Amino acid sequence: MSTAPTAPALPATMRAVVMKAPGDVAVETIETPRVAGPGDVVIKLAAACVCGSDLWPYRGAQPVDHQYMGHEYVGTIVEKGEGVRSLELGDFVIGSFMLSDGTCEICQAGYPSRCANAGHYTGSQAEYMRVELADGSLVKVPGGEPDDPERLADYLAASDVLGTGWYAAVAANAGPGKTIAVVGDGAVGLSAVLAAKALGAERVIIFSRHEDRAALAREFGADVVIAERGEEGAAKVKELTGGYGAHGVCEAVGSQESMDQALASCRPGGYVGFVGVSHDQTIDGLDLFLREVHLEGGPAPVRRFLPDLIKRIDAGEIHPGRVFTKRLPLDEAAEAYKAMDERREIKVLLEV
Amino acid sequence: MSTAPTAPALPATMRAVVMKAPGDVAVETIETPRVAGPGDVVIKLAAACVCGSDLWPYRGAQPVDHQYMGHEYVGTIVEKGEGVRSLELGDFVIGSFMLSDGTCEICQAGYPSRCANAGHYTGSQAEYMRVELADGSLVKVPGGEPDDPERLADYLAASDVLGTGWYAAVAANAGPGKTIAVVGDGAVGLSAVLAAKALGAERVIIFSRHEDRAALAREFGADVVIAERGEEGAAKVKELTGGYGAHGVCEAVGSQESMDQALASCRPGGYVGFVGVSHDQTIDGLDLFLREVHLEGGPAPVRRFLPDLIKRIDAGEIHPGRVFTKRLPLDEAAEAYKAMDERREIKVLLEV
Repeated sequence: MSTAPTAPALPATMRAVVMKAPGDVAVETIETPRVAGPGDVVIKLAAACVCGSDLWPYRGAQPVDHQYMGHEYVGTIVEKGEGVRSLELGDFVIGSFMLSDGTCEICQAGYPSRCANAGHYTGSQAEYMRVELADGSLVKVPGGEPDDPERLADYLAASDVLGTGWYAAVAANAGPGKTIAVVGDGAVGLSAVLAAKALGAERVIIFSRHEDRAALAREFGADVVIAERGEEGAAKVKELTGGYGAHGVCEAVGSQESMDQALASCRPGGYVGFVGVSHDQTIDGLDLFLREVHLEGGPAPVRRFLPDLIKRIDAGEIHPGRVFTKRLPLDEAAEAYKAMDERREIKVLLEV
Repeated sequence: MSTAPTAPALPATMRAVVMKAPGDVAVETIETPRVAGPGDVVIKLAAACVCGSDLWPYRGAQPVDHQYMGHEYVGTIVEKGEGVRSLELGDFVIGSFMLSDGTCEICQAGYPSRCANAGHYTGSQAEYMRVELADGSLVKVPGGEPDDPERLADYLAASDVLGTGWYAAVAANAGPGKTIAVVGDGAVGLSAVLAAKALGAERVIIFSRHEDRAALAREFGADVVIAERGEEGAAKVKELTGGYGAHGVCEAVGSQESMDQALASCRPGGYVGFVGVSHDQTIDGLDLFLREVHLEGGPAPVRRFLPDLIKRIDAGEIHPGRVFTKRLPLDEAAEAYKAMDERREIKVLLEV
């Protein structure tokens, strides 16, 4: 349980974002997390951010009581347990919001987000965080910490929203010759647009009524923006696809309406990838039976995609960090949450 | 709309099975169906049978009012429309219970059961039936009508239960190295066992409490029979799979209990294929999200599999006709329904 002898001295305390109750976000000074087990590392965060899913408790749709927040992260390893084999102090790393051992059958099959021995982390909206199962969870960025703040934002996006949008696009079977529709114009939906296009989709359709989001969707490769929702929106998709529906649909919201719209927009035999954290959704068995679509979703296995995503970012092929429409210092986290809650910003990066 | 000049004279009337009301099955003499459109054929049935799904209306779980029954068929083409290109009078054919044009994008993608221009047929529990979209729907058996009644039963099974079980196994991603669990020990579930094994599954588990069905499951290749149901049954599957759950599960019933059991028996990242006609099933979105399985089901695209199934039957690799535990003359259809309703027989073949 001892830390490596070369570990630099860490400050005894640090700043961290806490959600005391719905709508009540503050920055507190708390004890700096330290390595607690042989497979742990401590990371000094380079940047953090607020996730769309953080808004569920913020809005009272999920219970919350003095919770330290944040699950997206990039940073430098500043302390490591004696059992960590593949990473060194000073490595600049990206991890997923789900920690995985990388060795169980579920991880090996490509679903580290459902690892049989999943680990835990401390909140990433902070100066430091502890990450268990570091070997299985973290991916080293070959070039180290970037000087370019836009590149840093790209890496940070890979930790969750890009990886999640990527999973939605993979589950929607995006590829050459395919028309992919995306339900949800938040950071994940926009990332799904980018992913579908990067995976070779012929045509990407997004449902959006917000000009700023539609504009970013177009920048990410969306060919068509549909303002209609529900059955009307699905009818528009069918109009654009010879009456058949999209080959694949990404559901990036998590509501009943978004799931219904996604299923209705997909052709029989098509693929629906759903990555919006499900809230009060039910799916009628007979409806699903008669639609005969492939349905796959859940917490995105981001770790599976990270090496490829890092390569694509390093090659300049994708710029997922464009989802961050605002940067604020960590101390202004309350405003970051407010801006996202009020949909003034798509996603806010917190400078640590 | 004229029929081919070489069509033999058909009798003006024929016998056909009718369900007058739940539980009330009779054989009536009605007008023989004739070619009505250029793409139609009329088939003289070689054999017909009762489907598990026929029991839903029989038991009053689905409305029924004087309906001519039957959707599984093998027989000889005795009349054809002028537009039929790929089939000849005298051809011995198998078709799916869903008629498909074979040319729309949905058919081309392998989902003829959801053909954009689906056709209709008259009931197959009869001496003759009309089949629309013959070119897209029917597959000629190279060797013609078999003398061997067991081979005939194999072909008949391919028309629905085998094709449906096959789809369940394909959707469950059955293949080498995989453990596949099957929920449902009716003819479709048993066919799914056969299919999973034929597709190379390493281990096939079936849930069954009926010794006759379990025995046939073993004959079809089941390695393990589990008597427990629900969460207990799922726990048994996990015990057998290192705690992970099956790689794939076939759901061949259509009830809430069977779907819940199927989902609970599958590992994260695994595949659930559901082919039981859905009755009052709902799936909780969050539960599905957290299970993170692939879910695919619906009316089986039997036409996709038929050429392969016929080859495997002709090669003697599979004997799906073993699901027919009883043969009765068409005139005794009422007893056939009763025997299946009371689960005295797995599936009854009607000799036409």
